[in-house]
Amino acid sequence: MKITEGGITRPKGILASSVWCGIKKKKKDLCLIYSEAPASAAGVFTSNKVKAAPLILSKSHLRKGTARAILANSGNANCLTGSEGLKDAREIAQAVARELSIGQEDILIASTGVIGRRLPVEKVIFAVGALASALGSSSSTDIAKTLMTTDTVPKEIAVSIKIGSKAVNIGGVAKGAGMINPNMATMLAFMTSDALITPGALKKALKESVDASFNRITVDGDMSTNDCVFILANGLAGNEAIGHTGKNYGIFRDALTYVSFELAKKIVQDAEGATKFIKVTVSGAKSIVDAKKAAYAIATSPLVKTAFYGEDPNWGRIAAAAGRSGADLDAGRLDIYLGNEKVLGHGTPTGVDKGTLRKLFKKKEIEVSVNLNMGKKSAGLYTSDLSKKYIEINAHYTT
Amino acid sequence: MKITEGGITRPKGILASSVWCGIKKKKKDLCLIYSEAPASAAGVFTSNKVKAAPLILSKSHLRKGTARAILANSGNANCLTGSEGLKDAREIAQAVARELSIGQEDILIASTGVIGRRLPVEKVIFAVGALASALGSSSSTDIAKTLMTTDTVPKEIAVSIKIGSKAVNIGGVAKGAGMINPNMATMLAFMTSDALITPGALKKALKESVDASFNRITVDGDMSTNDCVFILANGLAGNEAIGHTGKNYGIFRDALTYVSFELAKKIVQDAEGATKFIKVTVSGAKSIVDAKKAAYAIATSPLVKTAFYGEDPNWGRIAAAAGRSGADLDAGRLDIYLGNEKVLGHGTPTGVDKGTLRKLFKKKEIEVSVNLNMGKKSAGLYTSDLSKKYIEINAHYTT
Repeated sequence: MKITEGGITRPKGILASSVWCGIKKKKKDLCLIYSEAPASAAGVFTSNKVKAAPLILSKSHLRKGTARAILANSGNANCLTGSEGLKDAREIAQAVARELSIGQEDILIASTGVIGRRLPVEKVIFAVGALASALGSSSSTDIAKTLMTTDTVPKEIAVSIKIGSKAVNIGGVAKGAGMINPNMATMLAFMTSDALITPGALKKALKESVDASFNRITVDGDMSTNDCVFILANGLAGNEAIGHTGKNYGIFRDALTYVSFELAKKIVQDAEGATKFIKVTVSGAKSIVDAKKAAYAIATSPLVKTAFYGEDPNWGRIAAAAGRSGADLDAGRLDIYLGNEKVLGHGTPTGVDKGTLRKLFKKKEIEVSVNLNMGKKSAGLYTSDLSKKYIEINAHYTT
Repeated sequence: MKITEGGITRPKGILASSVWCGIKKKKKDLCLIYSEAPASAAGVFTSNKVKAAPLILSKSHLRKGTARAILANSGNANCLTGSEGLKDAREIAQAVARELSIGQEDILIASTGVIGRRLPVEKVIFAVGALASALGSSSSTDIAKTLMTTDTVPKEIAVSIKIGSKAVNIGGVAKGAGMINPNMATMLAFMTSDALITPGALKKALKESVDASFNRITVDGDMSTNDCVFILANGLAGNEAIGHTGKNYGIFRDALTYVSFELAKKIVQDAEGATKFIKVTVSGAKSIVDAKKAAYAIATSPLVKTAFYGEDPNWGRIAAAAGRSGADLDAGRLDIYLGNEKVLGHGTPTGVDKGTLRKLFKKKEIEVSVNLNMGKKSAGLYTSDLSKKYIEINAHYTT
């Protein structure tokens, strides 16, 4: 696998365009990603029970396993907008389909922004013609920037792999400053590939990739109503078709996981106000559910996260978060490591020198490992610290 | 019921004292609450699986349903200190028992402070003699102040009720700045009464009171390893003994609930950095578990809480938090009220004027009500907002 340039427009036959349609104030707010050839397509959607209208529509369009285009807007989530919101999404998809002369079911739609306000549909539809005729004029970076809200950097990546003798490309862009802002639909990721792959295999590969990447990051436990990940794979690389299993499936899935993980990491690193990138691993759990519960409690605890921000090696908070997580544990068996330093062994402090720990906490990337010593299951999560800047960013969002 | 002065020392036969023993830097850090007569006693302990040594000891002492004294220190939690921590707690209880000439099992102990460091046992034991001889010299306010850590105000209350023809007093002190700081053992509440009540009835009344008060407040979802609530009731009021049921039980339980709720409210109002007191009610849930899940997700969401801090009536965040809570709901049935203003009706915005909502959000006390319209169960929670001050307080606690 090679890391390459070009992001989401790297794969053959993928074109993009972006415009300012008027949802936001004088900033590009609408973009289109289009495949010149019919493509296998798959999506993963938020588990939030409040789902935005574009997600409901896109999910139904993905049932057939193919699609050609993704239209995304920032500035308005089209969520909690009732039956009218769904009608709005459908009208937009129809307009895109007309302009591109493809079926309405080939359009995927995503929105991010404030919840509970109707989209200015006419403005969006008015801009669709310009978007269609400008296809090819926007770079991957342009698309990443159009999706940005509180993000401070555009997020994109591309890789190239070999399937048999053919070079296959996978590219992606993402938007999100830490999976933390439901009003901004937080997390969008769009990936494209020129691989030839069956719809079923693509769906499976996407699910496995997302489980190992986007589903392993958390900033504050909030989950957006608009989170979604889409992939289009148009087969223009001319490789032997990739199916559900086998070596080629593994190569493709691993490359897609790499792309997803890098995008997810960029989101955590750009988390609102974040100054640290923290890996939390819980091992020795009786079950995976227990391991996840404990890791999640540690990774989302405001006390743990403020201690990281303050560079205060206050590991008692880690133990306390694990203790209240609901995971089966015994304080007398608990081991805690900060980096490679064991600070607690079977529930008793090891007396590691505080200077050593402070030095460790000054790093940008920190690992926390907790061994429950109750069983053999483990789970990992990536998160950020919690800073004053986070409060500033989120206190006055809609005003 | 009358609200009276005197706090925890209001009930007959309750004496208190407090000293600086040297755990903290030049601030009182150790106090004793003593009943001149044998007393029924009960306790409620943190559900955190990591429990501090003093809690383990006190729980075992409470098995017989009676106690005479409570010794509490601030500055050190005596938690995750292994078997030595439990030995330390036992030695302290023995020293108190010797000085007061009562049984060791009549001593309840509580600690609050940093986790993972051993208590300076000699300092504590050295101070016990002074505490015992000074009994009666400290007011309830002195005790509340000795327990304070990041608290900005001492928390105390007393009420008087009639049981038959007898006046019965209940007093209490609490410590906690929002149930948010496991390193400081966050939440301690000690209550006393001169009621004559059986140990079984006292235990039942305490549990019911705590469920309706301390268990209904949350600031950031963190739960301390040292949280506990103790009550002593010595019978010196001379009332007819209160049993498990009947009118007198109801009067006593309601008064105890009032005392507990007022102390809990003072904790939320003094939450670290808090500027608002927020009541979250979820109704129309299929089950109480669902109602609690949704209320808890809303009350602990950093996004919801920063919006309150910023006085930004961004109710989409409330819907999004409910949506990810795991409670069974349908976005199309959701009603949301801010104060008396309905902002969402069956999943569709009602279009309430934004100026009206902004005015409502400027208040110090705000009510949020969510009706899932799925069933008949409901749950309520009290919480605070999340401010920059919270981060400041918690970022550099042990350093």
